[in-house]
Amino acid sequence: MPILANNPNRKSWLEVASDSDFPIQNIPFGVFLTKENIVTVGTRIGNYAIDLGALQQLNYFEGIELTDDMFMQDTLNDFISDGKKTWRLVRNRIAEIFDATNPKLRDNEKHKDIVIFNVDEVEMQLPVLIGDYTDFYSSKEHATNVGKMFRDPENALLPNWLHIPVGYHGRSSTIIPSGIPVHRPMGQTLPNGETTPVFGPSRLVDFELETAFITTDANIMGENIPVYEAEDYIFGMVLLNDWSARDIQKWEYVPLGPFLAKNFASSISPWIITLDALEPFRTKGPKQSPAPLPYLQSKGKHAFDINLEVSITPKNGVPNIVSHTNFKYMYWSMCQQLAHHTSNGCRVNSGDMMGSGTISGPTPDSFGSMLELTWGGKDPIQMNDGSERKFINDFDTVTIKGYSKNNEVRIGFGEVSNQLLPPFVRK
Amino acid sequence: MPILANNPNRKSWLEVASDSDFPIQNIPFGVFLTKENIVTVGTRIGNYAIDLGALQQLNYFEGIELTDDMFMQDTLNDFISDGKKTWRLVRNRIAEIFDATNPKLRDNEKHKDIVIFNVDEVEMQLPVLIGDYTDFYSSKEHATNVGKMFRDPENALLPNWLHIPVGYHGRSSTIIPSGIPVHRPMGQTLPNGETTPVFGPSRLVDFELETAFITTDANIMGENIPVYEAEDYIFGMVLLNDWSARDIQKWEYVPLGPFLAKNFASSISPWIITLDALEPFRTKGPKQSPAPLPYLQSKGKHAFDINLEVSITPKNGVPNIVSHTNFKYMYWSMCQQLAHHTSNGCRVNSGDMMGSGTISGPTPDSFGSMLELTWGGKDPIQMNDGSERKFINDFDTVTIKGYSKNNEVRIGFGEVSNQLLPPFVRK
Repeated sequence: MPILANNPNRKSWLEVASDSDFPIQNIPFGVFLTKENIVTVGTRIGNYAIDLGALQQLNYFEGIELTDDMFMQDTLNDFISDGKKTWRLVRNRIAEIFDATNPKLRDNEKHKDIVIFNVDEVEMQLPVLIGDYTDFYSSKEHATNVGKMFRDPENALLPNWLHIPVGYHGRSSTIIPSGIPVHRPMGQTLPNGETTPVFGPSRLVDFELETAFITTDANIMGENIPVYEAEDYIFGMVLLNDWSARDIQKWEYVPLGPFLAKNFASSISPWIITLDALEPFRTKGPKQSPAPLPYLQSKGKHAFDINLEVSITPKNGVPNIVSHTNFKYMYWSMCQQLAHHTSNGCRVNSGDMMGSGTISGPTPDSFGSMLELTWGGKDPIQMNDGSERKFINDFDTVTIKGYSKNNEVRIGFGEVSNQLLPPFVRK
Repeated sequence: MPILANNPNRKSWLEVASDSDFPIQNIPFGVFLTKENIVTVGTRIGNYAIDLGALQQLNYFEGIELTDDMFMQDTLNDFISDGKKTWRLVRNRIAEIFDATNPKLRDNEKHKDIVIFNVDEVEMQLPVLIGDYTDFYSSKEHATNVGKMFRDPENALLPNWLHIPVGYHGRSSTIIPSGIPVHRPMGQTLPNGETTPVFGPSRLVDFELETAFITTDANIMGENIPVYEAEDYIFGMVLLNDWSARDIQKWEYVPLGPFLAKNFASSISPWIITLDALEPFRTKGPKQSPAPLPYLQSKGKHAFDINLEVSITPKNGVPNIVSHTNFKYMYWSMCQQLAHHTSNGCRVNSGDMMGSGTISGPTPDSFGSMLELTWGGKDPIQMNDGSERKFINDFDTVTIKGYSKNNEVRIGFGEVSNQLLPPFVRK
């Protein structure tokens, strides 16, 4: 089915700024709460949030097979379960409804009042109920940087890294949308040179610049998804900040991996950008050498050209951009990650989320964490206000933005932006 | 509130064999499918499965505040959310309804027909929707054995082990109830002496003898649960077989922990035994030295005396008991695990599951995995039929049973029993 929604020449009758992340070619999916306390599935064009539940009730999706309450729900899981064909039909229909030349909704003031909100009037929610959250570790630059700092500078990359899209399980219960503050975690750490650990606030709270993809039901238990089919089961992508406490991590992570160092919070951008919308930005990923085993070999373009940036905004301050990088640098692609994840028959459900791992580029200003940007705190970053940062301070806001752009269209992710607060105090 | 349901002198008007795991003092909770294809929350006495949804509709829970459809659901999550007071009221009421001296249901044949099934007539389901699954690593003997085999025999226990109830996140989507077969996973492994990995069926499929506890909503994000409160948030326990592929594990697990080696299947016994029912079996755990940090220090008896055994039944063969051990050997208690898990503010929801980690006792016949029992395959176990096992063969059934017993009462878990099948073939 053609992705008509991607037509770069289409204009909307809704006003869209030329540098907007959300032109009519984007049509992301999210869930929001209106001022009237109604939760609905929605999309966004320019600075307008569009209530898809209301659109469905008003019969704008006539002819597309959808359950009656498909969009009057507090998650996208059921819609995502319906599969790629339905996603395309709905995205194409939305493009049609908001096409500048289509008077149907454009000229119906009563319907517009019901369906269209200013984005400032709605409160974005988590778009999906995330059953399982997996985080990969697929940036060669990041894995090399961490290996140099924590293990052996001469053998920074572990022997399995070039053969396996290494991943591990994260915690679903603490995934939050952009805007919700994060408390500095308490935890056990081993002070330098000591043999007895202490318990207290983490001193080394860090961000991790990541993207994540959201899956549909991919398989039954036992069944694998071949790498050449894997993208059919990816609904779309979000930005992910995988908050990390480096001092807790260092003391706890051998031998079973990060646990409390990560599961205090992971925050995501609230609009899921469909893989369809990103289609014009496919590109080739880095050459893989040695060649992966056959079950991980894929032909064609499976990386995506997505510009990413991170900024830190001190309390009452202005944003300081601390990193610029691109998703296309990732060594392992999303289809390889999903093929590997299911290679043992692991079941993948609608709404599962899989993080890329920290996205670090080849240059020091393109690293995806403070750990790497300041090289373990040795080279602090100067802020505009004269202060410096080794890691994240209380009341700092960390913001990740992302967009793809070519001569014809800009498809953006919006942002994931969360403030770090001091440790939680029990009331 | 007194736990009247635990009265050891009570008899039921339902027939219960003297060695049953499910006397009227047990009153576990589960979810089952009836022959009429109705899913309901239920309990079990002797070999009878009791439909709590029907009991509620027939007004047997009058006077207890419950939402109308509390037991007419396909999971226990909502009931568990209601908290400890409700669990006790319901368990006490069930004990009363089935007390030998109470004629109300006993003498109502019509109601009995609706409410009571033979356990063979129903199909047990997963009792809860498991949002997040965490697995701990809390047996000192197991951690020592694994450390000796995989790392350094002289420094088997890692430096953090005596300070931290080490844990990691598992995969919820592949948790299955007893009875569902498991396919031998495919995966990437590094043959001995080689530098290039291969992809194929795991050769070293193992069980892990564990228990797991199921939580209620414990906290909001950011908040910790103090160790002295933690047991209030534990609804009950099940038996857990955390299936493991040792060859996949060995190649993938450094540095982020086990992933595909574990997430192909974890199976649990279907009846949740409440912590209340296990109250008579509290005991002191092993002395902890060095003393844990204050946030992990607890007074009193927080270990439980639960006998555990594992058997392997070859195709068309008889069970071979391969391990006998006890849950009381665990170094870290469940309340320490939960306090640690939430010490960084990690949110814990109703229906979350936390595994104990492999339960190995002090003697070689009390180890909780084939890896330890055969010491990495060096000392195969003889089966009754003359064959031997280093790990689990295709068509073997692995069964874990557990029970607590004193002079007055036996509280059992039933079993978790699953057959290993050859690798899945896509149709």
